[in-house]
Amino acid sequence: MKETYVGIDVGGTNIKIGLFDSKLKLICKTSITTDADMGPDIVINNMARTVKQLITEAGLSLQDVVAIGIGTPGPAKYSEGIIIRSTNMPKFKNVPISRMLNEKLGAPVVFDNDANVACWGEYAVGAGQGVKDIVFFTLGTGIGGGIVSNGELVHGCDENAAELGHTIIYPDGRKCNCGQKGCVEAYASADSTARRATEALEAGAKSSLKKVLDEKGKITSKDVYKHLAAGDKLAKEITDGTAKALAITCINMLHTTEPKRIVFAGGMIAAGDVLLNRIKDFFNEHIWTLKKEAVEICFATLGEDAGIIGAAALAQHTKQQGKLK
Amino acid sequence: MKETYVGIDVGGTNIKIGLFDSKLKLICKTSITTDADMGPDIVINNMARTVKQLITEAGLSLQDVVAIGIGTPGPAKYSEGIIIRSTNMPKFKNVPISRMLNEKLGAPVVFDNDANVACWGEYAVGAGQGVKDIVFFTLGTGIGGGIVSNGELVHGCDENAAELGHTIIYPDGRKCNCGQKGCVEAYASADSTARRATEALEAGAKSSLKKVLDEKGKITSKDVYKHLAAGDKLAKEITDGTAKALAITCINMLHTTEPKRIVFAGGMIAAGDVLLNRIKDFFNEHIWTLKKEAVEICFATLGEDAGIIGAAALAQHTKQQGKLK
Repeated sequence: MKETYVGIDVGGTNIKIGLFDSKLKLICKTSITTDADMGPDIVINNMARTVKQLITEAGLSLQDVVAIGIGTPGPAKYSEGIIIRSTNMPKFKNVPISRMLNEKLGAPVVFDNDANVACWGEYAVGAGQGVKDIVFFTLGTGIGGGIVSNGELVHGCDENAAELGHTIIYPDGRKCNCGQKGCVEAYASADSTARRATEALEAGAKSSLKKVLDEKGKITSKDVYKHLAAGDKLAKEITDGTAKALAITCINMLHTTEPKRIVFAGGMIAAGDVLLNRIKDFFNEHIWTLKKEAVEICFATLGEDAGIIGAAALAQHTKQQGKLK
Repeated sequence: MKETYVGIDVGGTNIKIGLFDSKLKLICKTSITTDADMGPDIVINNMARTVKQLITEAGLSLQDVVAIGIGTPGPAKYSEGIIIRSTNMPKFKNVPISRMLNEKLGAPVVFDNDANVACWGEYAVGAGQGVKDIVFFTLGTGIGGGIVSNGELVHGCDENAAELGHTIIYPDGRKCNCGQKGCVEAYASADSTARRATEALEAGAKSSLKKVLDEKGKITSKDVYKHLAAGDKLAKEITDGTAKALAITCINMLHTTEPKRIVFAGGMIAAGDVLLNRIKDFFNEHIWTLKKEAVEICFATLGEDAGIIGAAALAQHTKQQGKLK
């Protein structure tokens, strides 16, 4: 038997699937369209068939699969293996995805939310390697989060822990989609970064971004960082707002679960050092003076594969803990 | 052998010591003055002698003691059993308190900071009983914190987790003693509550508290709650500021480790329901609408004995986990 783990990353558009060996080295991977409209039976059938194809192509057999890890967006009862509902997959209601996959593939299934799975990937083999405590943020449309404390994911009493994008940094501040005001997500996600720039332009701010808004009808965070590089003043202000919001959140996490490393992932880290260094600047400016903090703030390293690697790594970890069902 | 646990709570003024049975029922307790100026050798000798006296008085022997729990203020290397230094006990520098107590009493020693120990006490036998995830705040001179996640205390990478008083809720807000700005401690500790009232009076606010300030030269948080009960408008404003700051912090903790219960302890909870209900009001006003949250916000129930009970309970838990050294 060749100890093999399957990692599955379910998104609204695509499902990524990878096979990994006992050292979590990628054996092979593929991607299929989700086709969520076909309903859970067909989608999960497609998933299982694709796993079988990959296994055959790799010269392995189903008996080699020790465990299968899978990540989906919430809300779900992860420990029970059930997707409650899904914004991107409206036909998925109370779907016992773990049991269904298990019946088709034979191996035990480990299920968690997409942000936790990606967090675990970075922890196990990416930017979070070598420490026992990390905090993880994905900077995309929203801000997702994950926490590893003393070598374990923090799940919380109702499996909704680490909704870090919805920690409040400016009470009574900007309205967030979640119904709260002043969430870090309302300032520092890719969408909010773009939106703050748009609002500033609409309020009359002078900037080279104005031309982009006029021509394309909208601005993305990518535009903001592009114009920042070209020296635009508004782009600098907007970036500083994003970086400061993230830095305050880092300080708050340091005083909460005290991570050794804080890892940022998601589309917006393409901005590179201009963003990362500003986060560090604001962190150093706002952190306490009681003791010197040595937390490392860095970007994720696994990129697009974080989901499948993380799912496989979590499956392996659960196995090693003797907690596979 | 009668399974017995010792709980020791070291404060700057007094050291409380209690004996507990296997069900964590108090057998007997006492309190001695700390006399920190005498230095660690004498203080720890006094501690050990008092433990022995209690044991004799209870008709027990040293062999009945399974483990000793002890809590002190930080900073310390708790897992190594060493007090690094102490604001209240300047002669305590790099004191291997666990080893010293162990040598004198024979039983293994479990050492943690005072807030964690009190948090564990509430978790094990107080207001946090029956759930696996709690967050704990002490509202005193400052604001201390503790987190139990999935049935274990969160210690962090450097044993400084749960410094919850220093999470920032108003970036660039009031200056905190720690060097940061806008910490919840700078708004909502007993001292900060009194200070905000004093500042308002000095700025000309009209209030029945003015007479107290003029006569006593200072105001305490107790005065604020007394005048709130009598209908004073400034006292209401100040209390609302305290309650809102704590409510925002509760929301942030809910989105972080997702406790089932949030427990407030410390001198200021003597204020009673006028404070607790306002915290709940602000929580409900500011929490997201994505899902209904069922977190319980309540006051601690162990009072002054939380430190000794918590220390004994933590000693027992460590024993049960098979982690006694």
